[in-house]
Amino acid sequence: MDIDLVKNKNEDKKIIDLDEDIKIGGKEFTIISGPCSVENEEQIHTISKFLSEIGVKILRGGAFKPRTSPYTFQGLGFDGLKLLREAADENKLKVISEIMDPRDVEKAYDYVDIIQIGSRNMHNYSLLKEIGKVDKPILLKRGMTATVKEWLMAAEYIALEGNEDIILCERGIRTFENYTRNTLDLTVVPIIKSLSKLPIIIDPSHGTGRRTLVIPMTRAAVTVSADGVMFEIHPKPEEALSDGFQSLDFKQTKKLIKEIKEIKSCIDKL
Amino acid sequence: MDIDLVKNKNEDKKIIDLDEDIKIGGKEFTIISGPCSVENEEQIHTISKFLSEIGVKILRGGAFKPRTSPYTFQGLGFDGLKLLREAADENKLKVISEIMDPRDVEKAYDYVDIIQIGSRNMHNYSLLKEIGKVDKPILLKRGMTATVKEWLMAAEYIALEGNEDIILCERGIRTFENYTRNTLDLTVVPIIKSLSKLPIIIDPSHGTGRRTLVIPMTRAAVTVSADGVMFEIHPKPEEALSDGFQSLDFKQTKKLIKEIKEIKSCIDKL
Amino acid sequence: MDIDLVKNKNEDKKIIDLDEDIKIGGKEFTIISGPCSVENEEQIHTISKFLSEIGVKILRGGAFKPRTSPYTFQGLGFDGLKLLREAADENKLKVISEIMDPRDVEKAYDYVDIIQIGSRNMHNYSLLKEIGKVDKPILLKRGMTATVKEWLMAAEYIALEGNEDIILCERGIRTFENYTRNTLDLTVVPIIKSLSKLPIIIDPSHGTGRRTLVIPMTRAAVTVSADGVMFEIHPKPEEALSDGFQSLDFKQTKKLIKEIKEIKSCIDKL
Amino acid sequence: MDIDLVKNKNEDKKIIDLDEDIKIGGKEFTIISGPCSVENEEQIHTISKFLSEIGVKILRGGAFKPRTSPYTFQGLGFDGLKLLREAADENKLKVISEIMDPRDVEKAYDYVDIIQIGSRNMHNYSLLKEIGKVDKPILLKRGMTATVKEWLMAAEYIALEGNEDIILCERGIRTFENYTRNTLDLTVVPIIKSLSKLPIIIDPSHGTGRRTLVIPMTRAAVTVSADGVMFEIHPKPEEALSDGFQSLDFKQTKKLIKEIKEIKSCIDKL
Repeated sequence: MDIDLVKNKNEDKKIIDLDEDIKIGGKEFTIISGPCSVENEEQIHTISKFLSEIGVKILRGGAFKPRTSPYTFQGLGFDGLKLLREAADENKLKVISEIMDPRDVEKAYDYVDIIQIGSRNMHNYSLLKEIGKVDKPILLKRGMTATVKEWLMAAEYIALEGNEDIILCERGIRTFENYTRNTLDLTVVPIIKSLSKLPIIIDPSHGTGRRTLVIPMTRAAVTVSADGVMFEIHPKPEEALSDGFQSLDFKQTKKLIKEIKEIKSCIDKL
Repeated sequence: MDIDLVKNKNEDKKIIDLDEDIKIGGKEFTIISGPCSVENEEQIHTISKFLSEIGVKILRGGAFKPRTSPYTFQGLGFDGLKLLREAADENKLKVISEIMDPRDVEKAYDYVDIIQIGSRNMHNYSLLKEIGKVDKPILLKRGMTATVKEWLMAAEYIALEGNEDIILCERGIRTFENYTRNTLDLTVVPIIKSLSKLPIIIDPSHGTGRRTLVIPMTRAAVTVSADGVMFEIHPKPEEALSDGFQSLDFKQTKKLIKEIKEIKSCIDKL
Repeated sequence: MDIDLVKNKNEDKKIIDLDEDIKIGGKEFTIISGPCSVENEEQIHTISKFLSEIGVKILRGGAFKPRTSPYTFQGLGFDGLKLLREAADENKLKVISEIMDPRDVEKAYDYVDIIQIGSRNMHNYSLLKEIGKVDKPILLKRGMTATVKEWLMAAEYIALEGNEDIILCERGIRTFENYTRNTLDLTVVPIIKSLSKLPIIIDPSHGTGRRTLVIPMTRAAVTVSADGVMFEIHPKPEEALSDGFQSLDFKQTKKLIKEIKEIKSCIDKL
Repeated sequence: MDIDLVKNKNEDKKIIDLDEDIKIGGKEFTIISGPCSVENEEQIHTISKFLSEIGVKILRGGAFKPRTSPYTFQGLGFDGLKLLREAADENKLKVISEIMDPRDVEKAYDYVDIIQIGSRNMHNYSLLKEIGKVDKPILLKRGMTATVKEWLMAAEYIALEGNEDIILCERGIRTFENYTRNTLDLTVVPIIKSLSKLPIIIDPSHGTGRRTLVIPMTRAAVTVSADGVMFEIHPKPEEALSDGFQSLDFKQTKKLIKEIKEIKSCIDKL
């Protein structure tokens, strides 16, 4: 396969610069965390404060939720984005959130620091072109059954419009296994590293759909040299409006972050 | 599985009324044909004239083409839609074409009689909601790996906005077979008939990706009681800008339409 | 793809000769029917008598049942084969049954007229080689996720041992759809016809797992020029020890056979 | 899902005892290595000597090779098993090799210390029952598209015959990705640990099909607490008769084993 970000062959690995000390794609293993959905002010403030305290610098939170059924919770929309921004600012965090509609990009501009394109929209070329015109980094999730080539071609749609600050995110592919929600494919991390200059992180929460699998798969992501991880947390996972089953609680999160550091330190010395 | 178009349980089968004598979902087996992409005035006029002569009443033609790679032909856009409309009007045909961007819906309104939502956009909920507000029929293709339930839920997104004139279209699913482009799943025709009131047609051109398979699979679609077929034709398939490999020529088209009528007549008597 | 039964390129289509008036692969559409499992003498005699009366000439019945769980009914084994043979002889029927173990081939020789290789054993090369030495026809089912090429290569394992009397049988592939047991892939019928000289039949019972789908899919098999069909029946489907959900009752069977004849007659005239 | 090795619920984790100091499933991370196929005496002796020198205690080598095409190299058969045994004995190694035919089990008994059941035979119930009667450990590979439940049920077929010394081996599943041979699914390691008492190892060679991916995926296997790894090596990978593309050379092997130890030591302290 001879694909890569064609416009930029032969260039160095891409480092996404969010702030003086917040970079994705360099030597650090980036941790992004937050709730599946922004639910209310208290929830998002509690989580933001906690993340800030333990040193996490990027807050995730869904405001626009793509759901298979139109009858399930669809997210708080722009109200959610505002809550997310306020909680992040108060705790000096950066914000990542999903945008699903090209018409929302401009209005959402001030609320997000990284625009997430979800799995269901990896093939939404109108949206890809629109966010390709924006001067903010994009996190592009892999489509549910997309091949690496299709995924990199989706990135190319964005890059061709001028925006090359793209972070790839593996979130599990659809397989016949039904014990897990998806099958998290860690192999793509070294593959992407060899084919592309873009950083790649993993999302073990959607990638597995089970809290008990998030921890070992995050450990494993460090050893395959992923650039980071994005996982869901909730103060009370069992009360979450969506995806509580795959969210870590605060205690588990602290432990996981400690483990990440130790494994990273070990891997760096190899 | 207890899904269906929930808003409309217990109702009669839906018949889409395009004109006094052009209906989809009733007793007729509807034939939709045309080129993969609108290429130029001559091409679309030649095809429209031919279709009109052999009694086909609905013209398909791609103006916005969702392509995996941004470097392949992306379609003529609104210029293509205009050519399509003119050729159709001249030959008293109805027009179906794909819209990919919610911002194009209003502008495209006068050019199309049926709005097609492509496989890659079955999960594009912003687009589904937008076309749910339009008073024109929608042809909703099945997602590349969508289950029947996910497909009907996508239809429900449209219906909830008020537009229940939805035609489902099976266009093949992704499987491990690589001899064909996709695997056309005819089983969904009787499944949809039992679960939903919506009409369903098949697209054997994308569904198989091979001209030699379009003919037997169209025959088969009649026997499983599909409501119609949409297949690609081209005056010179070997010179088509896209998908020539799966397009029928005029002679093959005439023969196929004759065969459809004979099989339909046989099936109706069973 | 340049595969085919390599040893026999350029030869005519293969016709399997079971008897003066029982051939598979010629002009007739062959019907094979019987219960999923042989359960007891009464059951298999009742079914055999019925099949004989309506003109079906080949009786299927499982004696060795490959089941995912070792705790479910595994079939009657050789006792089942004997019951099958007796019931068939009394009603002048030919017998097809699955053999799973190379060590059973010799002992089963007198009880079966066609040896079935099930989907789970398509890659069981020891078994394929063993039955390649037998002078009885083989029905080779497609593996659960096998490509056409892999399937034809499995046939080649048999042919290389000397036995070229091979009938291919499509029985549905594994897909993400969970409304059906498998996804019956009718496209392979014209594909096999173009790549190979072997006859191909379909098994809509396992291919769909639902009685209501067996009928339309069998109709469709006729129109794509399959060489026949193998479907499950049971006097009282709701009381069957296995797969009752997908078995037709006697009345449905009669109706279906009548329909097959009418569609075949229509197709032959096209 | 409520499956597990039903016969043995509530028991402790299984430890497979090959020798006083060779155990699988305990605290050690077991390394199994060797060539894809036994090719000749020199090759297998060179490899065995090397493995012995670097402390690897179990030698793999294919003598019976299940190949999709009957025209590709099928392995040396019993001659290969003998070469494997001699080379192993000379270097004090244990032997693992695949058996495909239930009739070969007895004859192979003295040549192998662990009997491997390959992916294509996970559903070969006759073979599973036969090796269930043997008093040697079994390594059971996951079927190409098997779910965890189906895999554990295959193990249950073996256990029910009396042999509970079963090691599970993840070797990649079939997905739509074509850059890799298979998609190695590391998620199953923690899943199996939570559902079953059996040890589980991974095979990154077949699991990815690419040498460059074997190293990171083996590192990752350690972090998800797999019980070991089985990977292919060859003195001159570019000259191997089969699968050279996925074999490590000696230098890479040494480096990998050193890395495994360091990561294991780090993980054990977490």
